[in-house]
Amino acid sequence: MCQLLAMNANTPTDIVFSFDGFRRRGGLTDSHSDGFGIAFFEDSGVRILQDTSPCATSPFADMVCRCPIRSTNIVAHIRKATQGQVTLANTHPFMRELWGQYWLFAHNGNLKNFQPPQGTFFRPVGRTDSEAAFCHLLEQLRQQFDQQPDEATLFAALTRICGDIRQHGLFNCILSNGETMFAHCASLLHYIIRQAPFGVARLSDDDVEIDFANETQPNDRVAVIATLPLTNNEHWQQLAIDESALFKNGEIILRQPPPSPVYPDPETGLKMAQAAL
Amino acid sequence: MCQLLAMNANTPTDIVFSFDGFRRRGGLTDSHSDGFGIAFFEDSGVRILQDTSPCATSPFADMVCRCPIRSTNIVAHIRKATQGQVTLANTHPFMRELWGQYWLFAHNGNLKNFQPPQGTFFRPVGRTDSEAAFCHLLEQLRQQFDQQPDEATLFAALTRICGDIRQHGLFNCILSNGETMFAHCASLLHYIIRQAPFGVARLSDDDVEIDFANETQPNDRVAVIATLPLTNNEHWQQLAIDESALFKNGEIILRQPPPSPVYPDPETGLKMAQAAL
Repeated sequence: MCQLLAMNANTPTDIVFSFDGFRRRGGLTDSHSDGFGIAFFEDSGVRILQDTSPCATSPFADMVCRCPIRSTNIVAHIRKATQGQVTLANTHPFMRELWGQYWLFAHNGNLKNFQPPQGTFFRPVGRTDSEAAFCHLLEQLRQQFDQQPDEATLFAALTRICGDIRQHGLFNCILSNGETMFAHCASLLHYIIRQAPFGVARLSDDDVEIDFANETQPNDRVAVIATLPLTNNEHWQQLAIDESALFKNGEIILRQPPPSPVYPDPETGLKMAQAAL
Repeated sequence: MCQLLAMNANTPTDIVFSFDGFRRRGGLTDSHSDGFGIAFFEDSGVRILQDTSPCATSPFADMVCRCPIRSTNIVAHIRKATQGQVTLANTHPFMRELWGQYWLFAHNGNLKNFQPPQGTFFRPVGRTDSEAAFCHLLEQLRQQFDQQPDEATLFAALTRICGDIRQHGLFNCILSNGETMFAHCASLLHYIIRQAPFGVARLSDDDVEIDFANETQPNDRVAVIATLPLTNNEHWQQLAIDESALFKNGEIILRQPPPSPVYPDPETGLKMAQAAL
C-alpha cells in the first residue's frame, strides 16, 4: 500500500534527515513508487510538493532536501497504488479548507465498499478510497460543528469517525490543521519524540547519521510519526491497534484509548503490519 | 499591486517561454517581488508552486523552467502586496474544491471595505482582499447551485458576482476549474491566441525568442492571458473594461458584454492600467 511520515514540533524544524531515509522507500529500499507528496504548514499557509514519479528520484522530492523548509507540522506519503490510477489527483496528502483553516490528510490502508453519500461541504476530486474517507471525515466534522470546537471535543469526534471508517478496512491516517497532528492507528504507526538531551540518530535506509545536539536548541521538542521506524539506533514507540493520538508542540496531548501496559508484542505487530503494507 | 498570467489550451502545453518573461517582472524588470505562485491542472489534479521570495530568483520558480509541466490550464501571479503580509497563506493562486473539482483563483487589484459575511461553505485562511473575494465568489456559486451548472449559466453567474465585487474597487481576476478559464477585466488584461500558422515570438522582458512552429502541432491552439503583453512582436488583444470572457480549448467561447467596435484607446487604457499596477 503506502507509507506515512509526519512531524509535529514546538518550533519550526526541517525534515530533511527523516525525509532522506523515507524517500528511499519510494523506489529504492522499498516498492512504494507510485508517487509521493509532502506538505508543510508555514504559519496558516501550506506548501505541497507532489509527483506521480517515484519519491526516491523525483525532482520535486529533491527540492525538499535542496531547500530545507522549516515547519511545525509536516505530512508526507509515498504511494503504492491500490485504488485509483497513478495521477496527481490521487496523490496524498489531500487538502481542504474547513473553519478557515487548511487541513491535510494522508492514509495508509485499503477501504472496501466505502461509498459515503455525496457531501454537502466536501466532495472528492480523484478516485481513491483515501480522498473519499478524508472528505467524509471533514463532512462529518462540518455537519456537527459550525465553528472549530475545542481540542478535546475535536479529538473525540475524530476518534469516533475513524472508528466508523474502520468498518470498511485498514485505516492508518494522519490529519493536521497546522496546530495539532491527529494520528489514528489501525495496524501500524510508530512515533518518536526527540527532546533534550539530543543524541545521534542513524537512518535505517541509508548510511547517514546526524547529531541532533548540533542542530537543536535545548527547548526544542519534535515528534516524528512514521509507518515504520526511520532510524535503527533509537527507541521508537508503536501506537496500539485502534489507538488515536493528538500531537501538539511535539508531544502527545490526548490519546484514546489511554495507553495500556500491554502493547502488542513488537514482533507480532511488525509481522501483521508488514503484511498490510 | 500584482500581475496575472494564465494559459488555456486545447492540448497540454508548457508555459516555460511565457513564464520566463513574466517571472522577471517579479523583482528584475518590475517591482512585483512580494512572492509568486503558479498552479497547473494535471487532469483533475493541481500542482502549485509558490514562494514568498521574488519570482525572478525563487528556486521554486526555477523548477517551472527546469521541469517543464504540460497542462491545458495554468494560473500564475506575481505579488506586490497591498493587503495582507508577505506570507504563504496570502500568496495567489488560491485553491478550493467545489462540486468535486479544484478551482484556482488569482487577482490583480485592490478592494476597499470588502467584508462579506462569514461563508457557510468557504472561508478565507489568509488576510487578503483577494482570498476574501474568491471565497465570496465560490460561496455565491455554491449557494445558488448544488451541482455544476452548464457553461453559459456559470458564466452569467460569475459575471454578475464580479460586477458586485467591482463595487469595492479594482478587480481583474482569473478563475479556472481545469476545464475552462474565466477572466474578468476591471482595468487591464490582455490575451493572445496562438494557432497555425505559428511564428516567432520575442519576449519583452528578456532577450529571448522562440519559433512556435518548431514546438507545436498544426491543430494546437493556446490562449495566453496576461496583465501586460509578454512579447513585443505579436498582436495582443486587450479585454475591454468591465468585460468578462470564458476561454476553453484555447479560444474565447463566451464574452460579456459582446465585443464592441469601440475599444478604449490603447494609450489611455495603458496609462489608466499602469497607474493601477
